[in-house]
Amino acid sequence: MAGNSFGQLFRLTTFGESHGKALGGVIDGCPAGLELDLELIQKDLDRRKPGQSAIVTQRKEPDTVEFYSGLFEGKTTGTPIGFAIHNTNQKSHDYSHIKDSYRPSHADYVYDQKYGFRDYRGGGRSSARETASRVVAGAIAKQFLGDMRINAFVSQVGELKLDKPYQELDFSNIESNAVRCPDTEMAQKMEDYIKAIKKEGDTIGGVVTCVIQNVPIGLGEPVFDKLHARLGEAMLSINAVKGFEYGSGFAGVAMKGSQHNDAYNSDGTTQTNRSGGVQGGISNGMDIYFNVAFKPVATVLQAYDTINKEGEKVTTQGKGRHDPCVVPRAVPIVEAMAALVLADFTLLARTNKI
Amino acid sequence: MAGNSFGQLFRLTTFGESHGKALGGVIDGCPAGLELDLELIQKDLDRRKPGQSAIVTQRKEPDTVEFYSGLFEGKTTGTPIGFAIHNTNQKSHDYSHIKDSYRPSHADYVYDQKYGFRDYRGGGRSSARETASRVVAGAIAKQFLGDMRINAFVSQVGELKLDKPYQELDFSNIESNAVRCPDTEMAQKMEDYIKAIKKEGDTIGGVVTCVIQNVPIGLGEPVFDKLHARLGEAMLSINAVKGFEYGSGFAGVAMKGSQHNDAYNSDGTTQTNRSGGVQGGISNGMDIYFNVAFKPVATVLQAYDTINKEGEKVTTQGKGRHDPCVVPRAVPIVEAMAALVLADFTLLARTNKI
Amino acid sequence: MAGNSFGQLFRLTTFGESHGKALGGVIDGCPAGLELDLELIQKDLDRRKPGQSAIVTQRKEPDTVEFYSGLFEGKTTGTPIGFAIHNTNQKSHDYSHIKDSYRPSHADYVYDQKYGFRDYRGGGRSSARETASRVVAGAIAKQFLGDMRINAFVSQVGELKLDKPYQELDFSNIESNAVRCPDTEMAQKMEDYIKAIKKEGDTIGGVVTCVIQNVPIGLGEPVFDKLHARLGEAMLSINAVKGFEYGSGFAGVAMKGSQHNDAYNSDGTTQTNRSGGVQGGISNGMDIYFNVAFKPVATVLQAYDTINKEGEKVTTQGKGRHDPCVVPRAVPIVEAMAALVLADFTLLARTNKI
Amino acid sequence: MAGNSFGQLFRLTTFGESHGKALGGVIDGCPAGLELDLELIQKDLDRRKPGQSAIVTQRKEPDTVEFYSGLFEGKTTGTPIGFAIHNTNQKSHDYSHIKDSYRPSHADYVYDQKYGFRDYRGGGRSSARETASRVVAGAIAKQFLGDMRINAFVSQVGELKLDKPYQELDFSNIESNAVRCPDTEMAQKMEDYIKAIKKEGDTIGGVVTCVIQNVPIGLGEPVFDKLHARLGEAMLSINAVKGFEYGSGFAGVAMKGSQHNDAYNSDGTTQTNRSGGVQGGISNGMDIYFNVAFKPVATVLQAYDTINKEGEKVTTQGKGRHDPCVVPRAVPIVEAMAALVLADFTLLARTNKI
Repeated sequence: MAGNSFGQLFRLTTFGESHGKALGGVIDGCPAGLELDLELIQKDLDRRKPGQSAIVTQRKEPDTVEFYSGLFEGKTTGTPIGFAIHNTNQKSHDYSHIKDSYRPSHADYVYDQKYGFRDYRGGGRSSARETASRVVAGAIAKQFLGDMRINAFVSQVGELKLDKPYQELDFSNIESNAVRCPDTEMAQKMEDYIKAIKKEGDTIGGVVTCVIQNVPIGLGEPVFDKLHARLGEAMLSINAVKGFEYGSGFAGVAMKGSQHNDAYNSDGTTQTNRSGGVQGGISNGMDIYFNVAFKPVATVLQAYDTINKEGEKVTTQGKGRHDPCVVPRAVPIVEAMAALVLADFTLLARTNKI
Repeated sequence: MAGNSFGQLFRLTTFGESHGKALGGVIDGCPAGLELDLELIQKDLDRRKPGQSAIVTQRKEPDTVEFYSGLFEGKTTGTPIGFAIHNTNQKSHDYSHIKDSYRPSHADYVYDQKYGFRDYRGGGRSSARETASRVVAGAIAKQFLGDMRINAFVSQVGELKLDKPYQELDFSNIESNAVRCPDTEMAQKMEDYIKAIKKEGDTIGGVVTCVIQNVPIGLGEPVFDKLHARLGEAMLSINAVKGFEYGSGFAGVAMKGSQHNDAYNSDGTTQTNRSGGVQGGISNGMDIYFNVAFKPVATVLQAYDTINKEGEKVTTQGKGRHDPCVVPRAVPIVEAMAALVLADFTLLARTNKI
Repeated sequence: MAGNSFGQLFRLTTFGESHGKALGGVIDGCPAGLELDLELIQKDLDRRKPGQSAIVTQRKEPDTVEFYSGLFEGKTTGTPIGFAIHNTNQKSHDYSHIKDSYRPSHADYVYDQKYGFRDYRGGGRSSARETASRVVAGAIAKQFLGDMRINAFVSQVGELKLDKPYQELDFSNIESNAVRCPDTEMAQKMEDYIKAIKKEGDTIGGVVTCVIQNVPIGLGEPVFDKLHARLGEAMLSINAVKGFEYGSGFAGVAMKGSQHNDAYNSDGTTQTNRSGGVQGGISNGMDIYFNVAFKPVATVLQAYDTINKEGEKVTTQGKGRHDPCVVPRAVPIVEAMAALVLADFTLLARTNKI
Repeated sequence: MAGNSFGQLFRLTTFGESHGKALGGVIDGCPAGLELDLELIQKDLDRRKPGQSAIVTQRKEPDTVEFYSGLFEGKTTGTPIGFAIHNTNQKSHDYSHIKDSYRPSHADYVYDQKYGFRDYRGGGRSSARETASRVVAGAIAKQFLGDMRINAFVSQVGELKLDKPYQELDFSNIESNAVRCPDTEMAQKMEDYIKAIKKEGDTIGGVVTCVIQNVPIGLGEPVFDKLHARLGEAMLSINAVKGFEYGSGFAGVAMKGSQHNDAYNSDGTTQTNRSGGVQGGISNGMDIYFNVAFKPVATVLQAYDTINKEGEKVTTQGKGRHDPCVVPRAVPIVEAMAALVLADFTLLARTNKI
């Protein structure tokens, strides 16, 4: 299990390097009979793709997905869905500044150590370009999930933090601005800030919040495969993620049990949902909500000191077209991973009772 | 994959309910030839067991582990290690306050919904008593890991937060106090606070920090099975955990890339280790450190309103012997889960190169 | 995945050596709400246990199973079912003839080579005693399978071969004789033959045939997890098995397509069922039938030459209480493994369609 | 685990239907640093491809593999190897004879029943065309296996059976004739027979024998993942396979233990190797050999009766370009699956000892 598959029953396996011929994947276990809207899939890919706005990387990659199998007359057949996204932008780059030296806070060094050598063209397999395949699979999972609604959005950029509870936000605003923050005023501040950071040749971190609504009761499997444990794993597997919290999260630590406990309504819903829609690892039908922390992108367009393969100090100039802040493009990736987790547990939940 | 196994190559499967005959598990994949110090295993169990101090639950459970297989003449044989911890404290309790009503922020309701009924004696399978089996397996994994050092400790209780960097702490103090905080002054404050909370019949949350030292380079598998993603999943699978962050974590969000990046020394180590010992999902040889957030225990010894199976409001009095704060006993569990993740990736790393 | 688990959704993990404290296992994924008849489980164990007749080993092992978890008020709870069978017959044996030499056609040599040493008390983990745990799990799987009927029986011992098609046999005769052959006349011949073999201190091979009736259409997953591929794997994992064939099997090789093809009836059943109830890896609703070949037991009660750890020739006298022919006791094991495969695919089939 | 992956550490996932855009797969877990000879891969594909001789189907498919990832400067990188084989022969066929009726002994009926509908263009996913992806992966596995030698060949066609022990055969003859039988005299008889069968519009079954040499001691994992159990599963997952036997196989049933047991030489090898190179599920260093039984191809070019979706009798004329006997083209598939099993266990064996 070399680490390139996710999910047990609704399972995605991905392949591809940032500068190879193609990336893609295989979705195994998607049930038969699902009418697929291919435009919705491409739409999610477009939300992730470079060049979509002034605050993301200006690389040109159309990211068009081609399906090879598993679909027939517009529906899934129950057989594996193979797909590829061809890299159209494979012109011979100059990698000399990467090939023999290690970029700080990148995976260059550990890949060389682990595998004995590496594909040094861009990040190779460690590039976030791999997440395009996740978005394809997640967009299919979303369609499988039917009424469940997954909305991710940017809730923090640097110190700029959206402090309203999600219930007061209008999710229909998310796609109306380049940052993908549902509060348009805050969105403008964040956008301005990212532009300023970009001008410095620097980068900044952020937080993506995700809210999942209309979740049926009973998803998640005790004890190791708790719903939130798998959500956490899924989010932490996204490039640049440093933390995950759900429900009351780290703030819940300072509360007393008598304050924190969610009192029941007579229909089994709760009044406060500090639990974040998950109890004992199993969905309780309330909204699931969680935060995902992204560090600042490691590639800065400034001069920096580092070492080469011989351990000698070298000074390098960061270059290329990179994201000053990763969270606007991370929004569809967070949604995709959440959808994959939910699809997997939805299938698994069919096996709980005789 | 019903969720009761953890790990791929060094794999633990657990069984058992809080009030059944026995809990236990099977460790499959522990390599042959490991000389096991059984006392070290029992010692970790003793760090988790109830009744060990005035600030934990006063239930009496000796938690003695019995090994059934996989050991011969003091060494592991490479065959599965089966073990059980018999419940000695199975006297007929009065469960009437649990049987027909749902305790807030417990798993009672979702188990009934998911499975159609539940073992209502205590928490059944959702009880943290299950983690005793994890501690057994983790203690074996620790011995397999040789020189790697895993130290977990309590870094926060309610608002009381240990703000020193871990490098300034003396880990040898951890076991010298009931809270398991390496700063003895802070430990005393935390202990006093927990006692006060207990007197109120209330509970409080906390944070466990874990530091792993002497980690070889190369553990962790791109892209889904990143080392920190599996650590996060492992921690989030522990009862009452609401959040996980590693390295710079949520605080890293507000930093710029130029500040956050870890500059290399000539030997491949880094000067700042904001990465938390993991780069691109692969250990880089630096210390791994992470925080785990625990919510306040849901069982409060106060009167509370809730609903019964018919959805009618009922008022109940919390009773029994419960932990006012879970983090002191959670320390060995966090270590155990970390050890299981590392053992698994240690074996997997043997397969990376031809 | 060290090899001691079987199944994906209905999953058995076993532990235990022939002469350890206990063997047992964990069944994970058995759906909740199944009323378990514990006597049926013990009854299958009794069909496997030593000492049940004059033609099997005369060792005394009561093989009583103790359940630790996963059951509540007579029903499965959906949580893992942990169980153990304690070895009551652990008296200090004399292993000197095994400890330092390798019994021919046993696993002694390969265990030493693979693991560096071995538990030399009896066969250790390689002993067929491990299959007792499979019988427990299989007996639970059978109850889960409801109307499906699994009947295994002995169809060959040495050259004595039952050549009737299974449709002409009365399965209710199977348990009426010590050999477990449904043709009572042939059963007597086989019994006499096994007794003669035993008198020589020798052993003999045999074939177990298994017929599964009332199978729903749709079990089995293309392309690698074909129903018959998993049945084959299951059977080949039983000690002493050398071959597996289903439907027309090896005899089908010599047929022409025009003869071999199964013509359809108007209700989708077929007229000939040479396919053996499986088409393209998926059950077609017809009877599944297959043969399992068992080699003669390797332990003969005669003098034989072999080598010791130093590679020196030694002459040894086979001793102990062993089966002259393994197939009578293998019948419930074949059934158990078939039940585990079917239970797993039954759960998996719930996920095929949206 | 929807059934389209094979292997645990060296893992192949395949996708693709017989008449879709492309088939292909992802190989995850192939260790880094393996210099790949791409011509050897294409050569194995050519051994499987249609149109290679007068006795196989005359369809025209070049079966050229395109690699998308996982290779860099001629070596594997340790990241997933994605590949595709584009279908060049996708002209609009006439499927009316298949679309609404069920071909006998094909998977048409069960796919419709299992999934609710099916891709009726040819066999869809149930077509043996899927095995092209296995051959690609197997050819890579072979190169990973280094000195191990896997030779499969045709040992029986209809009643024509090669009765010599494999030690008397010259494997270098295998590729010298269209049947892939190493005995040139028998090969000629088989070829003539297949031609005669083809003239009748009929088909015939056969047996492929496989011999694996230079196997290290210690491959295979007790108890469920025995080496021969996984080999059996692998072979039974190939289209049209009805049986598997290794070592003495079904013939061993009639032997006495005293005859069947393999006496040791002083170096740990055995004198007779009736065990077939596997003892207790673990390779013992001797040659592994096994037989795989293939039924006659179900598509006959004759008129036949069958039913349509409404269960009405219809008479159909078989047409198209099909194999009169599948075994010559099955030889590289058997080798590929054997290579995948061995590669997986080779990696797993690295984790057996501390």
